[in-house]
Amino acid sequence: MAKLGEKKISSKKVFSGRLLKLRVDTVKLPNGVRTTREIVAHPGAVTIIALTDRNELVLVRQFRTAAGEVLLELPAGVPFKGEQGERTAKRELEEETGYRAKSVKKVYAGYASPGYSDELIQFYFARGLKKYKQMTEEDELIDVELVDLGLCLDLVKTGRIKDNKTVAGILIALNIAGGDW
Amino acid sequence: MAKLGEKKISSKKVFSGRLLKLRVDTVKLPNGVRTTREIVAHPGAVTIIALTDRNELVLVRQFRTAAGEVLLELPAGVPFKGEQGERTAKRELEEETGYRAKSVKKVYAGYASPGYSDELIQFYFARGLKKYKQMTEEDELIDVELVDLGLCLDLVKTGRIKDNKTVAGILIALNIAGGDW
Repeated sequence: MAKLGEKKISSKKVFSGRLLKLRVDTVKLPNGVRTTREIVAHPGAVTIIALTDRNELVLVRQFRTAAGEVLLELPAGVPFKGEQGERTAKRELEEETGYRAKSVKKVYAGYASPGYSDELIQFYFARGLKKYKQMTEEDELIDVELVDLGLCLDLVKTGRIKDNKTVAGILIALNIAGGDW
Repeated sequence: MAKLGEKKISSKKVFSGRLLKLRVDTVKLPNGVRTTREIVAHPGAVTIIALTDRNELVLVRQFRTAAGEVLLELPAGVPFKGEQGERTAKRELEEETGYRAKSVKKVYAGYASPGYSDELIQFYFARGLKKYKQMTEEDELIDVELVDLGLCLDLVKTGRIKDNKTVAGILIALNIAGGDW
Protein backbone atom coordinates (compact mmCIF):
# COMPACT_ATOMS: atom_id res chain seq x y z
CA MET A 1 0.00 0.00 0.00
CA ALA A 2 1.39 3.39 -0.99
CA LYS A 3 2.00 5.99 1.68
CA LEU A 4 -0.47 8.74 0.78
CA GLY A 5 -0.13 12.40 1.66
CA GLU A 6 1.85 15.48 0.70
CA LYS A 7 3.88 18.11 2.53
CA LYS A 8 3.37 21.69 1.44
CA ILE A 9 6.70 23.44 0.76
CA SER A 10 5.36 26.78 -0.42
CA SER A 11 2.23 28.41 -1.77
CA LYS A 12 1.91 31.28 -4.21
CA LYS A 13 -1.30 33.28 -4.50
CA VAL A 14 -2.10 34.02 -8.12
CA PHE A 15 -5.63 35.42 -8.16
CA SER A 16 -8.38 36.48 -5.81
CA GLY A 17 -11.71 37.27 -7.45
CA ARG A 18 -15.40 37.61 -6.71
CA LEU A 19 -15.94 33.83 -6.55
CA LEU A 20 -12.61 32.07 -7.02
CA LYS A 21 -9.07 32.18 -5.70
CA LEU A 22 -6.17 30.49 -7.45
CA ARG A 23 -2.83 29.45 -5.93
CA VAL A 24 0.11 27.31 -6.94
CA ASP A 25 1.42 25.02 -4.20
CA THR A 26 4.80 23.34 -4.27
CA VAL A 27 4.52 20.02 -2.47
CA LYS A 28 6.77 17.14 -1.48
CA LEU A 29 5.46 13.60 -1.81
CA PRO A 30 6.26 10.72 0.56
CA ASN A 31 8.59 9.32 -2.14
CA GLY A 32 10.61 12.56 -2.03
CA VAL A 33 9.39 13.93 -5.37
CA ARG A 34 8.61 17.65 -5.53
CA THR A 35 5.87 18.92 -7.80
CA THR A 36 3.46 21.82 -8.15
CA ARG A 37 -0.32 21.77 -7.82
CA GLU A 38 -2.53 24.48 -9.31
CA ILE A 39 -5.44 24.87 -6.93
CA VAL A 40 -8.74 26.68 -7.24
CA ALA A 41 -10.28 27.74 -3.93
CA HIS A 42 -14.06 27.94 -4.07
CA PRO A 43 -16.46 28.85 -1.25
CA GLY A 44 -18.37 25.59 -1.71
CA ALA A 45 -21.84 25.08 -3.12
CA VAL A 46 -25.24 23.67 -2.29
CA THR A 47 -27.43 21.73 -4.71
CA ILE A 48 -31.02 20.66 -4.24
CA ILE A 49 -32.73 17.39 -5.14
CA ALA A 50 -36.39 18.41 -5.15
CA LEU A 51 -39.16 15.98 -6.06
CA THR A 52 -42.72 17.12 -6.62
CA ASP A 53 -45.59 14.99 -5.29
CA ARG A 54 -45.90 13.65 -8.83
CA ASN A 55 -42.32 12.30 -8.60
CA GLU A 56 -40.89 14.90 -10.94
CA LEU A 57 -37.35 16.18 -10.43
CA VAL A 58 -37.12 19.98 -10.44
CA LEU A 59 -34.38 21.02 -12.86
CA VAL A 60 -33.14 24.35 -14.20
CA ARG A 61 -32.01 25.23 -17.70
CA GLN A 62 -29.47 28.03 -18.01
CA PHE A 63 -26.63 29.26 -20.17
CA ARG A 64 -23.27 28.50 -18.57
CA THR A 65 -20.52 30.86 -19.68
CA ALA A 66 -17.73 28.43 -18.81
CA ALA A 67 -19.34 25.57 -20.74
CA GLY A 68 -20.43 27.86 -23.56
CA GLU A 69 -23.82 26.21 -23.76
CA VAL A 70 -27.23 25.85 -22.14
CA LEU A 71 -27.29 23.07 -19.54
CA LEU A 72 -30.04 21.24 -17.68
CA GLU A 73 -29.04 20.88 -14.03
CA LEU A 74 -30.15 20.52 -10.45
CA PRO A 75 -30.70 23.96 -8.92
CA ALA A 76 -27.58 25.06 -7.04
CA GLY A 77 -25.86 28.05 -5.55
CA VAL A 78 -23.19 29.40 -3.26
CA PRO A 79 -23.97 30.13 0.42
CA PHE A 80 -23.88 33.73 1.61
CA LYS A 81 -21.04 34.32 4.05
CA GLY A 82 -21.92 32.50 7.27
CA GLU A 83 -25.15 31.06 5.86
CA GLN A 84 -26.03 27.50 6.91
CA GLY A 85 -26.37 24.97 4.10
CA GLU A 86 -29.98 24.21 4.93
CA ARG A 87 -30.87 27.89 4.54
CA THR A 88 -28.94 28.12 1.26
CA ALA A 89 -30.75 25.06 -0.08
CA LYS A 90 -34.20 26.50 0.67
CA ARG A 91 -33.24 29.95 -0.60
CA GLU A 92 -31.66 28.79 -3.86
CA LEU A 93 -34.50 26.38 -4.59
CA GLU A 94 -37.04 29.13 -4.16
CA GLU A 95 -35.05 31.82 -6.00
CA GLU A 96 -34.19 29.64 -8.98
CA THR A 97 -37.38 27.60 -9.32
CA GLY A 98 -40.14 29.24 -7.30
CA TYR A 99 -40.58 26.08 -5.22
CA ARG A 100 -40.64 26.53 -1.47
CA ALA A 101 -39.71 23.37 0.47
CA LYS A 102 -41.29 22.47 3.81
CA SER A 103 -38.06 20.78 4.85
CA VAL A 104 -34.63 19.99 3.46
CA LYS A 105 -32.18 17.35 4.60
CA LYS A 106 -28.52 16.89 3.72
CA VAL A 107 -28.04 13.57 1.97
CA TYR A 108 -24.48 13.68 0.57
CA ALA A 109 -21.49 15.96 0.04
CA GLY A 110 -18.99 15.49 -2.76
CA TYR A 111 -16.13 17.24 -4.51
CA ALA A 112 -16.79 18.59 -7.99
CA SER A 113 -13.25 18.16 -9.30
CA PRO A 114 -10.77 17.31 -6.56
CA GLY A 115 -7.80 17.17 -8.95
CA TYR A 116 -7.57 20.97 -8.83
CA SER A 117 -10.54 22.48 -6.95
CA ASP A 118 -11.57 22.38 -3.29
CA GLU A 119 -15.22 22.93 -4.23
CA LEU A 120 -17.37 20.67 -2.08
CA ILE A 121 -21.04 20.44 -3.07
CA GLN A 122 -23.60 19.76 -0.34
CA PHE A 123 -26.62 17.84 -1.67
CA TYR A 124 -29.96 18.52 0.03
CA PHE A 125 -33.16 16.59 -0.49
CA ALA A 126 -36.23 18.83 -0.41
CA ARG A 127 -39.70 17.70 0.67
CA GLY A 128 -43.12 19.31 0.75
CA LEU A 129 -42.82 21.58 -2.28
CA LYS A 130 -45.19 24.47 -2.92
CA LYS A 131 -44.94 26.63 -6.01
CA TYR A 132 -44.43 30.39 -5.55
CA LYS A 133 -42.78 32.91 -7.84
CA GLN A 134 -39.26 32.45 -9.22
CA MET A 135 -36.98 35.24 -7.94
CA THR A 136 -33.62 34.89 -9.68
CA GLU A 137 -30.84 37.41 -9.27
CA GLU A 138 -30.40 39.89 -12.09
CA ASP A 139 -27.45 38.01 -13.59
CA GLU A 140 -29.28 34.67 -13.57
CA LEU A 141 -31.62 33.75 -16.41
CA ILE A 142 -33.17 30.42 -15.65
CA ASP A 143 -35.95 28.23 -17.00
CA VAL A 144 -37.52 25.63 -14.74
CA GLU A 145 -38.14 22.14 -16.09
CA LEU A 146 -39.91 19.29 -14.31
CA VAL A 147 -38.74 15.86 -15.44
CA ASP A 148 -40.39 12.61 -14.44
CA LEU A 149 -37.81 10.87 -12.27
CA GLY A 150 -38.22 7.67 -14.28
CA LEU A 151 -37.13 9.52 -17.43
CA CYS A 152 -34.04 11.19 -15.97
CA LEU A 153 -31.74 8.30 -16.76
CA ASP A 154 -32.75 8.54 -20.42
CA LEU A 155 -31.76 12.22 -20.44
CA VAL A 156 -28.31 11.20 -19.18
CA LYS A 157 -27.96 8.38 -21.71
CA THR A 158 -28.93 10.61 -24.60
CA GLY A 159 -26.67 13.47 -23.53
CA ARG A 160 -29.45 15.92 -22.72
CA ILE A 161 -28.18 16.06 -19.15
CA LYS A 162 -24.42 16.56 -19.02
CA ASP A 163 -23.61 17.85 -15.59
CA ASN A 164 -21.98 15.48 -13.09
CA LYS A 165 -23.63 16.81 -9.91
CA THR A 166 -27.01 16.33 -11.62
CA VAL A 167 -26.18 12.73 -12.56
CA ALA A 168 -25.01 12.08 -8.99
CA GLY A 169 -28.25 13.65 -7.75
CA ILE A 170 -30.32 11.37 -9.99
CA LEU A 171 -28.72 8.28 -8.39
CA ILE A 172 -29.60 9.66 -4.96
CA ALA A 173 -33.14 10.69 -5.99
CA LEU A 174 -33.86 7.24 -7.46
CA ASN A 175 -32.71 5.59 -4.25
CA ILE A 176 -34.64 7.97 -2.02
CA ALA A 177 -37.78 7.42 -4.12
CA GLY A 178 -37.19 3.67 -3.95
CA GLY A 179 -36.80 3.75 -0.18
CA ASP A 180 -33.13 2.70 -0.36
CA TRP A 181 -31.56 5.83 1.14
CA MET B 1 -39.45 31.14 -21.08
CA ALA B 2 -36.35 33.23 -20.45
CA LYS B 3 -34.06 34.09 -23.35
CA LEU B 4 -30.85 32.27 -22.50
CA GLY B 5 -27.37 33.22 -23.66
CA GLU B 6 -24.68 35.82 -23.10
CA LYS B 7 -22.59 38.16 -25.24
CA LYS B 8 -18.92 38.41 -24.39
CA ILE B 9 -17.80 42.05 -24.07
CA SER B 10 -14.20 41.47 -23.06
CA SER B 11 -11.93 38.80 -21.64
CA LYS B 12 -8.89 39.21 -19.41
CA LYS B 13 -6.30 36.45 -19.08
CA VAL B 14 -5.18 36.10 -15.48
CA PHE B 15 -3.14 32.91 -15.31
CA SER B 16 -1.72 30.21 -17.57
CA GLY B 17 -0.22 27.23 -15.78
CA ARG B 18 0.78 23.63 -16.30
CA LEU B 19 -2.83 22.38 -16.14
CA LEU B 20 -5.17 25.35 -15.75
CA LYS B 21 -5.82 28.73 -17.30
CA LEU B 22 -7.91 31.40 -15.62
CA ARG B 23 -9.67 34.35 -17.25
CA VAL B 24 -12.27 36.92 -16.27
CA ASP B 25 -14.94 37.56 -18.91
CA THR B 26 -17.22 40.56 -18.93
CA VAL B 27 -20.54 39.54 -20.45
CA LYS B 28 -23.85 41.13 -21.37
CA LEU B 29 -27.05 39.20 -20.67
CA PRO B 30 -30.18 39.26 -22.87
CA ASN B 31 -31.82 41.51 -20.22
CA GLY B 32 -29.04 44.09 -20.70
CA VAL B 33 -27.25 43.38 -17.40
CA ARG B 34 -23.45 43.33 -17.49
CA THR B 35 -21.55 41.07 -15.15
CA THR B 36 -18.21 39.28 -14.86
CA ARG B 37 -17.56 35.55 -14.95
CA GLU B 38 -14.39 33.99 -13.53
CA ILE B 39 -13.59 31.04 -15.74
CA VAL B 40 -11.16 28.16 -15.37
CA ALA B 41 -10.06 26.59 -18.65
CA HIS B 42 -9.11 22.94 -18.26
CA PRO B 43 -7.94 20.54 -21.00
CA GLY B 44 -10.75 18.08 -20.16
CA ALA B 45 -10.50 14.71 -18.51
CA VAL B 46 -11.29 11.05 -19.00
CA THR B 47 -12.60 8.72 -16.31
CA ILE B 48 -12.99 4.97 -16.46
CA ILE B 49 -15.81 2.75 -15.18
CA ALA B 50 -14.10 -0.64 -15.02
CA LEU B 51 -15.89 -3.73 -13.75
CA THR B 52 -14.05 -6.97 -13.05
CA ASP B 53 -15.67 -10.27 -14.03
CA ARG B 54 -16.71 -10.56 -10.37
CA ASN B 55 -18.72 -7.32 -10.72
CA GLU B 56 -16.30 -5.25 -8.69
CA LEU B 57 -15.75 -1.58 -9.54
CA VAL B 58 -12.08 -0.64 -9.83
CA LEU B 59 -11.43 2.44 -7.68
CA VAL B 60 -8.32 4.37 -6.69
CA ARG B 61 -7.45 5.91 -3.37
CA GLN B 62 -5.17 8.94 -3.44
CA PHE B 63 -4.37 12.12 -1.55
CA ARG B 64 -5.87 15.15 -3.30
CA THR B 65 -4.03 18.36 -2.56
CA ALA B 66 -7.01 20.58 -3.41
CA ALA B 67 -9.36 18.60 -1.17
CA GLY B 68 -6.73 18.21 1.54
CA GLU B 69 -7.67 14.58 2.07
CA VAL B 70 -7.47 11.06 0.70
CA LEU B 71 -10.35 10.27 -1.66
CA LEU B 72 -11.74 7.09 -3.19
CA GLU B 73 -12.52 7.72 -6.86
CA LEU B 74 -12.89 6.29 -10.32
CA PRO B 75 -9.52 6.27 -12.08
CA ALA B 76 -9.16 9.37 -14.23
CA GLY B 77 -6.67 11.51 -16.06
CA VAL B 78 -6.01 14.18 -18.61
CA PRO B 79 -5.38 13.27 -22.28
CA PHE B 80 -1.95 13.93 -23.76
CA LYS B 81 -2.08 16.62 -26.41
CA GLY B 82 -3.90 15.18 -29.42
CA GLU B 83 -4.60 11.86 -27.70
CA GLN B 84 -7.97 10.24 -28.40
CA GLY B 85 -10.22 9.68 -25.37
CA GLU B 86 -10.31 5.93 -25.92
CA ARG B 87 -6.52 5.77 -25.78
CA THR B 88 -6.43 7.96 -22.66
CA ALA B 89 -9.00 5.73 -20.96
CA LYS B 90 -6.98 2.56 -21.60
CA ARG B 91 -3.70 4.24 -20.65
CA GLU B 92 -4.93 5.84 -17.42
CA LEU B 93 -6.71 2.66 -16.33
CA GLU B 94 -3.54 0.64 -16.80
CA GLU B 95 -1.16 3.23 -15.31
CA GLU B 96 -3.27 3.91 -12.23
CA THR B 97 -4.64 0.44 -11.54
CA GLY B 98 -2.63 -2.11 -13.50
CA TYR B 99 -5.77 -3.31 -15.28
CA ARG B 100 -5.58 -3.57 -19.06
CA ALA B 101 -8.97 -3.42 -20.80
CA LYS B 102 -9.79 -5.38 -23.93
CA SER B 103 -12.12 -2.61 -25.05
CA VAL B 104 -13.45 0.71 -23.83
CA LYS B 105 -16.59 2.52 -24.91
CA LYS B 106 -17.69 6.08 -24.24
CA VAL B 107 -20.92 6.09 -22.26
CA TYR B 108 -21.39 9.70 -21.10
CA ALA B 109 -19.70 13.09 -20.95
CA GLY B 110 -20.45 15.69 -18.30
CA TYR B 111 -19.18 18.93 -16.86
CA ALA B 112 -17.50 18.82 -13.46
CA SER B 113 -18.51 22.31 -12.35
CA PRO B 114 -20.00 24.36 -15.18
CA GLY B 115 -20.55 27.43 -13.00
CA TYR B 116 -16.87 28.35 -13.43
CA SER B 117 -14.97 25.58 -15.20
CA ASP B 118 -15.09 24.27 -18.77
CA GLU B 119 -13.80 20.87 -17.65
CA LEU B 120 -15.73 18.18 -19.48
CA ILE B 121 -15.18 14.62 -18.23
CA GLN B 122 -15.56 11.77 -20.73
CA PHE B 123 -16.77 8.56 -19.07
CA TYR B 124 -15.57 5.28 -20.61
CA PHE B 125 -16.81 1.82 -19.71
CA ALA B 126 -14.02 -0.76 -19.78
CA ARG B 127 -14.54 -4.44 -20.53
CA GLY B 128 -12.34 -7.53 -20.50
CA LEU B 129 -9.95 -6.56 -17.70
CA LYS B 130 -6.62 -8.30 -17.15
CA LYS B 131 -4.35 -7.40 -14.27
CA TYR B 132 -0.81 -6.24 -15.06
CA LYS B 133 1.52 -3.98 -13.10
CA GLN B 134 0.47 -0.52 -11.90
CA MET B 135 2.67 2.16 -13.54
CA THR B 136 1.81 5.51 -11.98
CA GLU B 137 3.73 8.68 -12.77
CA GLU B 138 6.26 9.78 -10.17
CA ASP B 139 3.93 12.44 -8.74
CA GLU B 140 1.01 10.02 -8.40
CA LEU B 141 0.75 7.78 -5.34
CA ILE B 142 -2.27 5.59 -5.73
CA ASP B 143 -3.79 2.56 -4.02
CA VAL B 144 -6.18 0.36 -5.98
CA GLU B 145 -9.40 -0.80 -4.33
CA LEU B 146 -11.97 -3.20 -5.75
CA VAL B 147 -15.48 -2.61 -4.44
CA ASP B 148 -18.41 -4.91 -5.05
CA LEU B 149 -20.76 -2.88 -7.27
CA GLY B 150 -23.69 -3.71 -4.97
CA LEU B 151 -21.87 -2.06 -2.06
CA CYS B 152 -20.92 1.17 -3.84
CA LEU B 153 -24.14 2.96 -2.97
CA ASP B 154 -23.46 2.29 0.73
CA LEU B 155 -20.06 3.95 0.39
CA VAL B 156 -21.79 7.03 -1.02
CA LYS B 157 -24.47 7.04 1.70
CA THR B 158 -21.90 6.74 4.48
CA GLY B 159 -19.60 9.41 3.03
CA ARG B 160 -16.72 7.08 2.21
CA ILE B 161 -17.08 8.07 -1.43
CA LYS B 162 -17.32 11.83 -1.85
CA ASP B 163 -16.43 12.60 -5.42
CA ASN B 164 -19.21 13.54 -7.81
CA LYS B 165 -17.81 11.93 -10.98
CA THR B 166 -17.52 8.67 -9.03
CA VAL B 167 -21.14 8.89 -7.86
CA ALA B 168 -22.23 9.63 -11.43
CA GLY B 169 -20.16 6.65 -12.58
CA ILE B 170 -21.85 4.38 -10.05
CA LEU B 171 -25.28 5.24 -11.50
CA ILE B 172 -23.98 4.37 -14.96
CA ALA B 173 -22.22 1.18 -13.79
CA LEU B 174 -25.37 -0.05 -12.01
CA ASN B 175 -27.41 0.52 -15.14
CA ILE B 176 -24.86 -1.11 -17.43
CA ALA B 177 -24.67 -4.12 -15.08
CA GLY B 178 -28.48 -4.26 -15.00
CA GLY B 179 -28.72 -4.15 -18.80
CA ASP B 180 -30.42 -0.73 -18.76
CA TRP B 181 -27.73 1.26 -20.58
